[in-house]
Amino acid sequence: MEIVRPFRVDSAARRVEILDQTRLPGEQVWITLKDPAQIIEAIQSLRVRGAPAIGVAGAYAMWLADDPLGWAARIAAARPTAVNLSWAVDRMLRCISRGGDLFAEADAIREEDEAACHAIGRYGAALLGQTSSVLTHCNAGSLATAGYGTALGVIYAAVEGGKSIAVIACETRPLLQGARLTAYELQHAGVDVTLIADSVTASLMASGRVDAVVVGADRIARNGDVANKIGTYAVALAARAHDVPFYVAAPRSTFDLNCPNGAAIPIEERSAAEVTEGFGVRTAPEGVCVYSPAFDITPAALVTSLIVDTGVIPAVEAEIVAAIGGS
Amino acid sequence: MEIVRPFRVDSAARRVEILDQTRLPGEQVWITLKDPAQIIEAIQSLRVRGAPAIGVAGAYAMWLADDPLGWAARIAAARPTAVNLSWAVDRMLRCISRGGDLFAEADAIREEDEAACHAIGRYGAALLGQTSSVLTHCNAGSLATAGYGTALGVIYAAVEGGKSIAVIACETRPLLQGARLTAYELQHAGVDVTLIADSVTASLMASGRVDAVVVGADRIARNGDVANKIGTYAVALAARAHDVPFYVAAPRSTFDLNCPNGAAIPIEERSAAEVTEGFGVRTAPEGVCVYSPAFDITPAALVTSLIVDTGVIPAVEAEIVAAIGGS
Repeated sequence: MEIVRPFRVDSAARRVEILDQTRLPGEQVWITLKDPAQIIEAIQSLRVRGAPAIGVAGAYAMWLADDPLGWAARIAAARPTAVNLSWAVDRMLRCISRGGDLFAEADAIREEDEAACHAIGRYGAALLGQTSSVLTHCNAGSLATAGYGTALGVIYAAVEGGKSIAVIACETRPLLQGARLTAYELQHAGVDVTLIADSVTASLMASGRVDAVVVGADRIARNGDVANKIGTYAVALAARAHDVPFYVAAPRSTFDLNCPNGAAIPIEERSAAEVTEGFGVRTAPEGVCVYSPAFDITPAALVTSLIVDTGVIPAVEAEIVAAIGGS
Repeated sequence: MEIVRPFRVDSAARRVEILDQTRLPGEQVWITLKDPAQIIEAIQSLRVRGAPAIGVAGAYAMWLADDPLGWAARIAAARPTAVNLSWAVDRMLRCISRGGDLFAEADAIREEDEAACHAIGRYGAALLGQTSSVLTHCNAGSLATAGYGTALGVIYAAVEGGKSIAVIACETRPLLQGARLTAYELQHAGVDVTLIADSVTASLMASGRVDAVVVGADRIARNGDVANKIGTYAVALAARAHDVPFYVAAPRSTFDLNCPNGAAIPIEERSAAEVTEGFGVRTAPEGVCVYSPAFDITPAALVTSLIVDTGVIPAVEAEIVAAIGGS
């Protein structure tokens, strides 16, 4: 199975290369990032996106900074919703205080994330039937992580384990991460994928053609509420209405035990142009008002299970605290 | 209030002009249709769309045909889901059997539809609060009817009656009838409108910012199940989860008393290209499989009330039969 890899790192040359996700699937363009300002730009313009992946990118930004203490706050604030970014920056700051090697620490974050994805994949694959139709929203794949993916890690592990998995990918407006990235990386890996408009999800579930939902997360609160790409909550409501299991796959770095519940998670709003002219073509009247939150909150009660790198747990506070090792 | 009008008819010149809805909002292009083949093409390519509007267009196609009996089946089958098309063709056939004037009959269908929209508007407006935020999906406006609209007729009537209405328009992938048409005609009429991606609906309701949903319909079965634009069912599920009233506005011509329930309504599937390159730009990998139903079924149990040109009724079989005058 050939799985796309989103990062290339050269410590001697002090540079990080990323596959520019704004150009996929049409063009595979690697861009070179040599300083924290370039990495922040890449994060904000979604050249690199996905909560674990921007955590990794943020760690490398700290390594590339001449003055990492001075850059820390700006890097951590590049995007507000995914907690992995501030988690990675905090970890780099702790490395600085103990006089550690910043490249080694950033590389460890990347390697640990990839290992976490494989663990999530193994735990999650066991939840899927031998022949399953699995719906996913947005891209929580190799491209969204250090490699392999969270939600798509579950798919890859199931397929590698011999299961027959057909994936239904929601296109994920406005930026079409499902159409552009999930369909691309699944096709690249030889996994069966069918693309749908986001609004098809509910009727597809009503027709009985979805066996499970697996999505990633940008931040999971202490009570189990999940922030993920806008539209995830609607998928969860439809799944509940049709008794379809709804799984959220995320590494421990996506959990925010300081955040009591979903209402406390900041939700980024994106520009109107992503909705009105997202493809270089104006598709709405000039001057129309637009509301475009990038994420929504799925309440813990709608989550069948969380698939974490430490195991499969319910979205319940005590279980989360135990699984994440917090207190 | 300046409301867009979608049809111009010239009986002496034997022609119908329609505002080409595939070119909106960027260009306002009127195209001239002089025979049934041109009208069928306009219906199939969505230059004219919306259940009541294609019923009107189908009636004019029968008028323009040299051999209306020979064309009837092809006109009725131009699109499968909206029942208004076969309803209008049946009515024109009855006109032929009694030796009636086909132009007068088609024009009566158009005038009656516009009158029905105004009646729907009056009944529906009374359901909205003095200051309301109303969400709608797709376009059930003036452009979808002979004029004035069903769901948007309710909005127009409320605004004309002095209510303060803020409309939230779902963009409605894949063809963006909400962004291109609903936002356009509301802006044209001076009504407050905010555009959202379809996937924003559920979280917007969770935030308490939606007071009511009003949508149109393509066909309503005898038991009250509603076929409407894909995504309507997800809106209805979210509305139910947040106790938001969900209204369906439609004239009697949209009801199909021969159809026992939603499962018996044929659902049109559209081409993959509308999802993968709907903006003239390829936004998904080549060769990806796509599933693109144009409509879905909202079960009667999720419909708060039906707003019909005869009044406001529950989505319950006996009430529907009484309101429609069937048996």
